[in-house]
Amino acid sequence: MSLTNRQIKLINSLHSKKGRKENLKFLVEGEKVILELLNSNWKIDFIVINEKYLNDFKQIPNVIYLSEHEITKLSSLKSNSFGIAVVEMHDPIFSLNELNGTYIYLDGIRDPGNLGTIIRICDWYGIKYLFTSLDSTDFYNPKSIISSMGSFTRIQVIPIEFEKLIQTLSNFQIVGTFLNGTNIYDYQFKNNQIIVLGNESQGIRLDIESFIKDRITIPKIGEAESLNVGISTAIVLDNVFRKKL
Amino acid sequence: MSLTNRQIKLINSLHSKKGRKENLKFLVEGEKVILELLNSNWKIDFIVINEKYLNDFKQIPNVIYLSEHEITKLSSLKSNSFGIAVVEMHDPIFSLNELNGTYIYLDGIRDPGNLGTIIRICDWYGIKYLFTSLDSTDFYNPKSIISSMGSFTRIQVIPIEFEKLIQTLSNFQIVGTFLNGTNIYDYQFKNNQIIVLGNESQGIRLDIESFIKDRITIPKIGEAESLNVGISTAIVLDNVFRKKL
Repeated sequence: MSLTNRQIKLINSLHSKKGRKENLKFLVEGEKVILELLNSNWKIDFIVINEKYLNDFKQIPNVIYLSEHEITKLSSLKSNSFGIAVVEMHDPIFSLNELNGTYIYLDGIRDPGNLGTIIRICDWYGIKYLFTSLDSTDFYNPKSIISSMGSFTRIQVIPIEFEKLIQTLSNFQIVGTFLNGTNIYDYQFKNNQIIVLGNESQGIRLDIESFIKDRITIPKIGEAESLNVGISTAIVLDNVFRKKL
Repeated sequence: MSLTNRQIKLINSLHSKKGRKENLKFLVEGEKVILELLNSNWKIDFIVINEKYLNDFKQIPNVIYLSEHEITKLSSLKSNSFGIAVVEMHDPIFSLNELNGTYIYLDGIRDPGNLGTIIRICDWYGIKYLFTSLDSTDFYNPKSIISSMGSFTRIQVIPIEFEKLIQTLSNFQIVGTFLNGTNIYDYQFKNNQIIVLGNESQGIRLDIESFIKDRITIPKIGEAESLNVGISTAIVLDNVFRKKL
């Protein structure tokens, strides 16, 4: 069985947001991420796998075998020696009323690699939902999926207006990261809280800043002006959870 | 003044490691990074700047003005609306005998973006030297320089064999990050220490592992198998310095 022209066209279209929106499908690339996908509930349309693994996927339906060269041509990775899966999008399943604990809200995150890294961090700390502003990069971007390293199968990313999110979460503290807030080593994190992080260049925007009750800061010793948003998320979450262990 | 053919060829060659090695020069791209470069001691060969900033760089020698379109064609960034500098490499200036405090050693790091992010983290925590194995990605890669966000001007990256490094640092504790070590929240970090982090897929290699005295681990609550090496570096360093503040 080889790829049909329709399938080749489909894969190529899914590299763009427009193509993903039209087809309601997205790409999952690379060994680690595809193996996690196969253990998840996401519905796979079809998978292209390196022909050298011909005997390893006999139990999996809709597998097409190609050479590494052919797979790389279809992939967003510089080299892809494993495969590509075409997967169906689905809406996140959750209810705002069920939420408790710590959640992250990303205000206008732009870089899909950073978003994927943050999905992986949430998965490390056991945070099942990740909220983003509606204008954030979409997590179905192949780069987000790759840098999530499979964690996208366990974490639901939910684009939502901030005001709408906090309306239902009246018992949550609203915390934001700034350069001039309370030192995170001293700050008393709450049991239920939303922590807002701004984007790579602008920080948290004014319309969201106005809702923030507590401003927190990662202490700086040297001279870098700021930290990458993925790095900031990780350090803040580590400080939340170290107090609970 | 416009770019000569020799200069265009030079810029294009500096996108590859081979070209950088032959010319002993490298590229610095984007506004934030170039502005930090201009405040540093690095020797600039020439700079290409967007013609819309024609009046802003009168004090700077060897500036050539081009359109955004022309700059983007020469750049490794998808779009570059500011400029590109061609900068001369120099060897790191330091003596192993002067070292004290906490340092990071990266064993075989591959991704230049991760390396740049770690340079930025070292700069945040005031760590002036970053050590890497000889086979690590070179920090002159345009992606490392860009993701360091200017911090490369303050931090010296030193590729060095691990054994050679620790021979002179006899009063340093040698610490490594593993999945089965002492919880970093409980571990007593030392005043003088080298913390080793493994690469993106293999972890710390056996020849280096044999030198490691203390094994530490970032506690995990959820299900992600591992963390990105930049994220791990940040969390470990935050745990080192939070105890000193």
